Amino acid sequence: MQQAYQKLARKLEELGQLEQIMGILHWDQEVIMPRGATQARAGQIASLAGVAHEKQTDPQIGELLDQLESGSLSDLDPYELCNIRETRRAYDRETKVPMELVQELAELGSKGHHIWAKAREENKYSDFAPVLERLIELQKQWAHYIEPDQPPYDVLMDIYERDLTVERVDPIFERLKVELVPLIRAIQESDYQPDTSFLQGEFSVAKQEALGRTISEALGFDFNKGRMDVSVHPFCGGADPTDVRITTRYGTDNFMESLFAVIHETGHALYEQGRMERDRALPVSEALTTGIHESQSLFWERMISKQKAFCDHYMELFTETFPDSLKGVNSQAFYEAINICRPTFIRVESDEVTYPMHIILRYEIEKGIFDDTYKVSDLPEVWNNKMQEYLGIRPATDTEGILQDVHWSGGAFGYFPSYTFGAMYACQFYNAMKQETPDLENWIRDGRFQSIRQWLSQKIHVKGKLLSTDALLKEVTGEALSPAHFIAYLKNKYHEIYRLSSSV
Amino acid sequence: MQQAYQKLARKLEELGQLEQIMGILHWDQEVIMPRGATQARAGQIASLAGVAHEKQTDPQIGELLDQLESGSLSDLDPYELCNIRETRRAYDRETKVPMELVQELAELGSKGHHIWAKAREENKYSDFAPVLERLIELQKQWAHYIEPDQPPYDVLMDIYERDLTVERVDPIFERLKVELVPLIRAIQESDYQPDTSFLQGEFSVAKQEALGRTISEALGFDFNKGRMDVSVHPFCGGADPTDVRITTRYGTDNFMESLFAVIHETGHALYEQGRMERDRALPVSEALTTGIHESQSLFWERMISKQKAFCDHYMELFTETFPDSLKGVNSQAFYEAINICRPTFIRVESDEVTYPMHIILRYEIEKGIFDDTYKVSDLPEVWNNKMQEYLGIRPATDTEGILQDVHWSGGAFGYFPSYTFGAMYACQFYNAMKQETPDLENWIRDGRFQSIRQWLSQKIHVKGKLLSTDALLKEVTGEALSPAHFIAYLKNKYHEIYRLSSSV
Repeated sequence: MQQAYQKLARKLEELGQLEQIMGILHWDQEVIMPRGATQARAGQIASLAGVAHEKQTDPQIGELLDQLESGSLSDLDPYELCNIRETRRAYDRETKVPMELVQELAELGSKGHHIWAKAREENKYSDFAPVLERLIELQKQWAHYIEPDQPPYDVLMDIYERDLTVERVDPIFERLKVELVPLIRAIQESDYQPDTSFLQGEFSVAKQEALGRTISEALGFDFNKGRMDVSVHPFCGGADPTDVRITTRYGTDNFMESLFAVIHETGHALYEQGRMERDRALPVSEALTTGIHESQSLFWERMISKQKAFCDHYMELFTETFPDSLKGVNSQAFYEAINICRPTFIRVESDEVTYPMHIILRYEIEKGIFDDTYKVSDLPEVWNNKMQEYLGIRPATDTEGILQDVHWSGGAFGYFPSYTFGAMYACQFYNAMKQETPDLENWIRDGRFQSIRQWLSQKIHVKGKLLSTDALLKEVTGEALSPAHFIAYLKNKYHEIYRLSSSV
Repeated sequence: MQQAYQKLARKLEELGQLEQIMGILHWDQEVIMPRGATQARAGQIASLAGVAHEKQTDPQIGELLDQLESGSLSDLDPYELCNIRETRRAYDRETKVPMELVQELAELGSKGHHIWAKAREENKYSDFAPVLERLIELQKQWAHYIEPDQPPYDVLMDIYERDLTVERVDPIFERLKVELVPLIRAIQESDYQPDTSFLQGEFSVAKQEALGRTISEALGFDFNKGRMDVSVHPFCGGADPTDVRITTRYGTDNFMESLFAVIHETGHALYEQGRMERDRALPVSEALTTGIHESQSLFWERMISKQKAFCDHYMELFTETFPDSLKGVNSQAFYEAINICRPTFIRVESDEVTYPMHIILRYEIEKGIFDDTYKVSDLPEVWNNKMQEYLGIRPATDTEGILQDVHWSGGAFGYFPSYTFGAMYACQFYNAMKQETPDLENWIRDGRFQSIRQWLSQKIHVKGKLLSTDALLKEVTGEALSPAHFIAYLKNKYHEIYRLSSSV
């Protein structure tokens, strides 16, 4: 038993290391690679992906799994069992789907990205529609090969957020809509609108970078085991917990964008740097799900750094760094300004109150695509109607409507819900922490972020994939996911900022 | 035939791409990797090397080679024939040696590096001697597996500089000794010694970097297909001709070290960027040998940038960049200062006249090791005696003697000669160019470096591995390698600088 397990583990470790290399290649490509090397890099990545696929579908893995699963599992510890469970899942996914389908998906996903980018630039949905149509068809086939008895959209959501189903998501998103649509309307109609004028100005990149580094380090990012650089789209990548690389981008007309990107990516990075010491290249030590990963970035970005106590702690540093803009601004005014709520067409520019509406809209459309409620040709109209209904604004072009996101162009359907599940997890984690530590806001006001990071590490980061999301939530917060936390948080916070009457 | 070749080529291309990835991992490790990631990176590199080894020794490659070699080779063009020839060589090397020997060499090479570094730091040759002893034994075994009928040192030199043998090298190095030892003595005894005081001072890193970039670009380095960064030891690495990465290092007390490192690495980089367009991931397009690669770096570093015309061209820029040190220095004085000749214990700090003596000393010791003339315990004494004889100086410690170089600690014997062969090739190439272009020095004085780069590219870089080194020399220079060019160059140049009588 142990012999078979060790054999499997060695294979998984090799595979894990090849995936780490892929992480470095992607980071290099986004951050540092000479422009002329695009084609060569595509070839390198294709070759490495080919090798990884060979290793992943090695029939010996199947045999070892069969052998282990039919043996006496009580000889193995929970980490080993988790590695077997995760390997079975990945192995089945890699081997159940015919090669031709995998290849067509990969090719169309890559071609689709270029067609989408051009269509978005030229505001021509009709150019992208045929690709979208085919991608949907292929993803339906893919889902059928993986789980023939389940609705395809459930199978797709499960890739990113384990165990999400339409049955589970529907009531949660319905409740968010019922609560947040009126809240957003009330905020818009409020007589009181915070002043944000001091957030605009001239902000040197060098100062922004120094500020970002200082805060990232204060939150706990270990620069001995990571880097911070610049890329077009901020991300957290790299290889393994000793090599975690975050990026941000700088504009000189504001410092909010770079700073909150740094904090967001630092949240992802702390999850990676906080992973368990054992089995570092094996599945058990990896992040649980996309949604839990997002909960860690949003925990720091929203729950911590967008609260008043955080502004109290850093107001002096902000003012010292950018005196021209911030002199005379107090931390209450700053807090209100960074929490401004305003409906916008673009998801990535939206705030924490309107963001869930962008997600629910996409979720409903994806659901309707895969249960054949919507035709591809109807989607722009559906999109715009929902924007009108949920946010009270209507895109004038598809570029600022249905063509705005990259996800579908690569064939990723079912990803969006994990953003809002991440936000709800983050809020529920925060409330649990606050329950245990009534003094939490004073910790933040005093900059005692290490205690917060340790709490997250011990309760979440080191747990890897040992527990299901539900079990983790219960263990950490004492209850299953409940949108009530998120809704109450948003209502309390924005009622206060916008001086709303409590009836909304 | 073509079908078998295409099958082979696809396998080679995959292998070439994995090697490109290895190039990126090494560059990343030296330049940008967080310090804490050392262990994880070692694991990634070991896994990738393992995959590459599997692919390299794939029995299908052996079968395809057998099939192709027994078929009608006239169906294939010279590029295809070269790929087959090179693959046969590599395949035999990878498959002739038992796995246990390969592994022991790899492990001892890695362990040996640490033991050597510590022994060098502590000046304790006796700590390194047992490792050296074992490495020599293993390399003898390795050479015997590869070519049982040839002297082991010939087999080892052939790794780096194809077709070098003791029989060929001995007379060439004897001639260099006979000519250069008296020249070095005469230089030392000369009444005239150039002033070098203005090369010391305070030189900002930012200015050095800007100067290096300007000159590298002027020589032809394409920054769209490459980068320039900082590392502890300057090198040229990266992935493929569209992703060539050079490094340098900066001290603030002089700008010569960083500048000539940039020019040296630019020479290597131009070779890589100038490779043929076809078969980019296949052996035929790769650099011919270590010695030819070195000829390209030394061509720019010594033949071009250490000549008077180059100083004439750049004197104004140098003075503008560093006026505090260089104001009032004319290009003749600058030229003499950068060509100062002075015996030193350390190879990498030595000049073009004394450098060959460092190499000949190492060559003679390696030869004596492998034909059993020398025992490992005798080597420090042998080293010091030869230093005394060739350069008139005697190291006081083994740290500045036999322990100075990294090569042996990793098991690399037979590498050193390629440095001086590179220098001789560079000189012979320069003379051929000058023969065709009597106006060459005016080109340099006018900064017309692109014509020079094109000459090298067309005659050398795009030729890849199509010709043997001998055939390339004959094609480019009209004759086989002759040390006479190098000797005459050094004598003329240094007689003039040091005002020596022509009898030396």
